[in-house]
Amino acid sequence: MVAVEHPQVRSTERGAEPRLRSTRGPRYEAAVLGFRHYWYPALLSRHLGKKPQTIKMLGEDLVFVRGEAGRPYALYDRCAHRGMPLSAGTCLSAGTITCPYHGWTFDVANGDLVAALTDGPQSAVVGKIGKRVRSYPVEERNGIIYVYMGDANPPPLEADVPEEMLSPDYTFSVVVSLWHSNWRAGIENGYDAAHAPYIHRDSLRWRTAMRLQPAWGGYVQSVVEGKYLRQTRGGERGYEAEYPRVGRWPRHTRLRKALAKLGERQTRPSIQTNEFRLPCIIRNRYTYYHHVRWAVPVDAHTSRTFQALVGPYDGARAAAFKAQYWLWHRWVFHMWFNGQDEKVIAQLEYDAPEQLFRPDSSIVGLRKYIEAHARTGDPEPGVPEPDFSGERYP
Amino acid sequence: MVAVEHPQVRSTERGAEPRLRSTRGPRYEAAVLGFRHYWYPALLSRHLGKKPQTIKMLGEDLVFVRGEAGRPYALYDRCAHRGMPLSAGTCLSAGTITCPYHGWTFDVANGDLVAALTDGPQSAVVGKIGKRVRSYPVEERNGIIYVYMGDANPPPLEADVPEEMLSPDYTFSVVVSLWHSNWRAGIENGYDAAHAPYIHRDSLRWRTAMRLQPAWGGYVQSVVEGKYLRQTRGGERGYEAEYPRVGRWPRHTRLRKALAKLGERQTRPSIQTNEFRLPCIIRNRYTYYHHVRWAVPVDAHTSRTFQALVGPYDGARAAAFKAQYWLWHRWVFHMWFNGQDEKVIAQLEYDAPEQLFRPDSSIVGLRKYIEAHARTGDPEPGVPEPDFSGERYP
Amino acid sequence: MVAVEHPQVRSTERGAEPRLRSTRGPRYEAAVLGFRHYWYPALLSRHLGKKPQTIKMLGEDLVFVRGEAGRPYALYDRCAHRGMPLSAGTCLSAGTITCPYHGWTFDVANGDLVAALTDGPQSAVVGKIGKRVRSYPVEERNGIIYVYMGDANPPPLEADVPEEMLSPDYTFSVVVSLWHSNWRAGIENGYDAAHAPYIHRDSLRWRTAMRLQPAWGGYVQSVVEGKYLRQTRGGERGYEAEYPRVGRWPRHTRLRKALAKLGERQTRPSIQTNEFRLPCIIRNRYTYYHHVRWAVPVDAHTSRTFQALVGPYDGARAAAFKAQYWLWHRWVFHMWFNGQDEKVIAQLEYDAPEQLFRPDSSIVGLRKYIEAHARTGDPEPGVPEPDFSGERYP
Repeated sequence: MVAVEHPQVRSTERGAEPRLRSTRGPRYEAAVLGFRHYWYPALLSRHLGKKPQTIKMLGEDLVFVRGEAGRPYALYDRCAHRGMPLSAGTCLSAGTITCPYHGWTFDVANGDLVAALTDGPQSAVVGKIGKRVRSYPVEERNGIIYVYMGDANPPPLEADVPEEMLSPDYTFSVVVSLWHSNWRAGIENGYDAAHAPYIHRDSLRWRTAMRLQPAWGGYVQSVVEGKYLRQTRGGERGYEAEYPRVGRWPRHTRLRKALAKLGERQTRPSIQTNEFRLPCIIRNRYTYYHHVRWAVPVDAHTSRTFQALVGPYDGARAAAFKAQYWLWHRWVFHMWFNGQDEKVIAQLEYDAPEQLFRPDSSIVGLRKYIEAHARTGDPEPGVPEPDFSGERYP
Repeated sequence: MVAVEHPQVRSTERGAEPRLRSTRGPRYEAAVLGFRHYWYPALLSRHLGKKPQTIKMLGEDLVFVRGEAGRPYALYDRCAHRGMPLSAGTCLSAGTITCPYHGWTFDVANGDLVAALTDGPQSAVVGKIGKRVRSYPVEERNGIIYVYMGDANPPPLEADVPEEMLSPDYTFSVVVSLWHSNWRAGIENGYDAAHAPYIHRDSLRWRTAMRLQPAWGGYVQSVVEGKYLRQTRGGERGYEAEYPRVGRWPRHTRLRKALAKLGERQTRPSIQTNEFRLPCIIRNRYTYYHHVRWAVPVDAHTSRTFQALVGPYDGARAAAFKAQYWLWHRWVFHMWFNGQDEKVIAQLEYDAPEQLFRPDSSIVGLRKYIEAHARTGDPEPGVPEPDFSGERYP
Repeated sequence: MVAVEHPQVRSTERGAEPRLRSTRGPRYEAAVLGFRHYWYPALLSRHLGKKPQTIKMLGEDLVFVRGEAGRPYALYDRCAHRGMPLSAGTCLSAGTITCPYHGWTFDVANGDLVAALTDGPQSAVVGKIGKRVRSYPVEERNGIIYVYMGDANPPPLEADVPEEMLSPDYTFSVVVSLWHSNWRAGIENGYDAAHAPYIHRDSLRWRTAMRLQPAWGGYVQSVVEGKYLRQTRGGERGYEAEYPRVGRWPRHTRLRKALAKLGERQTRPSIQTNEFRLPCIIRNRYTYYHHVRWAVPVDAHTSRTFQALVGPYDGARAAAFKAQYWLWHRWVFHMWFNGQDEKVIAQLEYDAPEQLFRPDSSIVGLRKYIEAHARTGDPEPGVPEPDFSGERYP
């Protein structure tokens, strides 16, 4: 193939103003496979049984297994011996996994080589530190198995996972799906202040449909509040207008208008916050529940999306909340509504030249925040991470 | 992968004469995706309705839409904002196309940004020259939509399209198909003086079948006549011979011989000209019609072939000509006969070392002509292009 | 994509001993597509009829055809003219093949151009040495067609093919299949002293099932004996043991134990030799037959496996041997038992960092032997190759 200059750039050279440089800083630009020094959700507890499971994360293949007392562990999914995937092997005894090729057997808890079956019980390689397989810190909480992708000394899980996913005061339901786009397109879409009124304009998701949503807002400033970057909308909003060339927009259907009229009588307020948290978390707080979504990097073109609907419920109210999730939110919110995003960003040419506009102040803020604060190494054990609350972006 | 030297070259080194260098000049060699500064057919009028159509040409994705009064337009198929394909969008009002992601709305006639819906009607980006999308000059004539792939100042369509495709004195029918080979293999095949008697030896296409075709000819000289490079066959032709090792060839079937005997009584003359015209046009003139074929570059391994059968007919004779096309030529000539070429060149290793022979004087002439005269930029407005009539190749 | 350091190496850097360098020498490491200067089996006689067959070997496409008296020949599968695959052509007369594009016709015996049909019988290119297609020496013996992949001066077939495949004193049956791994993974697996007790632990192949096999042995030394590198096992063997963490292993099923008990009464001895022969041959000698397997390189990720079961039988005993093959060995030994190997090595990351153990003394020996003795050019005609018998590896 020959190199072809990007047609948009060629267009610009024809007497146009210079194209803006990307607002992605160098660290964020390089993080095609994500930032390593964080806890990430890997899979749901109910998806890991007796058989080893292979999961690709941040470009690496990991094998997850349950050891003694059902505790989950993760190893790099290649035998130290010859590079065979351990996930094709078997667990001959609790707490070990045996390679399918020559029977090298590893302790799933730390990756140590505990037996080399085909070299006999006296094999000299057993216990040698150089023969071990990389192991990854793993924690299982409330039905989700998390893995730490950094080098060592993982911080406590609480440092990286939203508190409502860990607290006994909350209940939640989760759906996991592969999105066919880079993880950065996934989080930028979630934090994007402008896409919703267009992409989701025809959605019949309850709280979107039952009241007319703003079609635009002003410049978006973001402010750090603890672990979160939160949007604060300034100034004016608009709901409908006459545009030159286009005419009236949005053009609501009669059904939509009728629903909105009904909706005016009720008091369900709209979204309260749109927040980002490192490494790849979008959180939206609503009156009755939170929506928490991770876009976990898989490879350069794929992310694994964990979407949780979390509410401060227990007992019978928790059961009702879960029932409502399975009967409604899972399908209408997580699969259909957010599926509209997935479908769009799967087609996005993420590395194309960009021309940003006012609502992209949200994304510019997000990018600058990530560039400034994404971890570059394991956190110092016992040293609390600094609190940047109050910083404003962009 | 390791690099392996080409087995034919290795063979040659074993005491053979030096292998000829390619007869492709550097500009032609580099034109893997074609020459940009020309009008090309993009799609048929009947294939563009209300929905935007994406068409890849010369390695670029273009979106075609119909604007006011049904006029067709083409834009680069990526939104200036974030690189989203506009072809996934919709036309909210006549003459505009709106990106599916954030509602950026462009004037299809010039690519100007006329609205950024999710930034409100006062959005500051509207009308900014740097936010526009590259637009391509488009013309629709006689059922074909043409696009100019150069930078600006397109010459009139007449400069690049055969006159019989534009003139009211002619009628024609067209078929469009993807050929799985580089466009250069497509035009070289069409201009090739030697392939026909072998590839098409068993064809029952009417004018080929009804009279025995020459099996070989002499050295082929080409001469420029206006916009065309035309073959002039010199000297001897042969129809059948005894070859060492092979025996008699061609070996005509009884059916073929019987048809040829019938054919002798009629006066349908055979092909009159085999011509090439830049950028990628083969024209064959026959007694009663012309065959015009474009091999439009799509990507390095694909071309979009437009085949037209054109005749100087109007009224009832035009209708009869079209009927004959749909009943016979479309299937027997365009799909079956020329499909024999497509099937062969799809297997060709176009970049393999070559060893040419006498009939390749046709291809060498074609290559030298293209190297000498393919445009390197937009033609000067109002300045007629020079006429090279009389030049001889090779 | 961004480059990611290999997770195992990253693990090692965390205070572990330095990782061993590969035991593959530079020539073996570079031989991704095999060693050229050898005879290889290409296809079975019964798979080559009147139609040309294309076979990719050592990264090159070859076309095999039968010439006069049914003799097989091989040419490089690209026409010297324009790079068209000759295998898409036809044989117009015995001993020739004609290119489907322009009718260039080659002598299958030496690749000479004998006719260029579309240039007439007097074509000047005929017989020109530079127009010939590379031809490959071919021999057909006992139902197998062999091809020499070196440059010229092939040694006699006997120099490269096990004697029992050529001798009239033997009979054999063969199965050919594609294995989806590099050829080196294929031969290393065959010579591997440790994989069998693990991969094949549940096999019901007769001679494996009817007697308990050793689960481990000691350090493996290899000794050269003529053309073969042969394993000589030193010292202790073990059949079953208690391992820390794993417990008893192997854990034989009741069926297996019952069969083994039956087996003790019979006298079928186990395998006698495990041998390697250049370029890519594994030979195992058993009491009643030999197993000979080639892993012929196809491309970087594929090899063509020829598996032969050879016995010193003739007449009725040969027929019985063949019947037994088709009723049992072909399915149980060649397809199922060795299919267990194929399935495993197809998943192997062959280029991963390695950590070897005692039984890998077999593979280290194999690699050093190949590095030392693989041919670097055609053997000198008439000069016997040196005999390295007695050399010991590793």
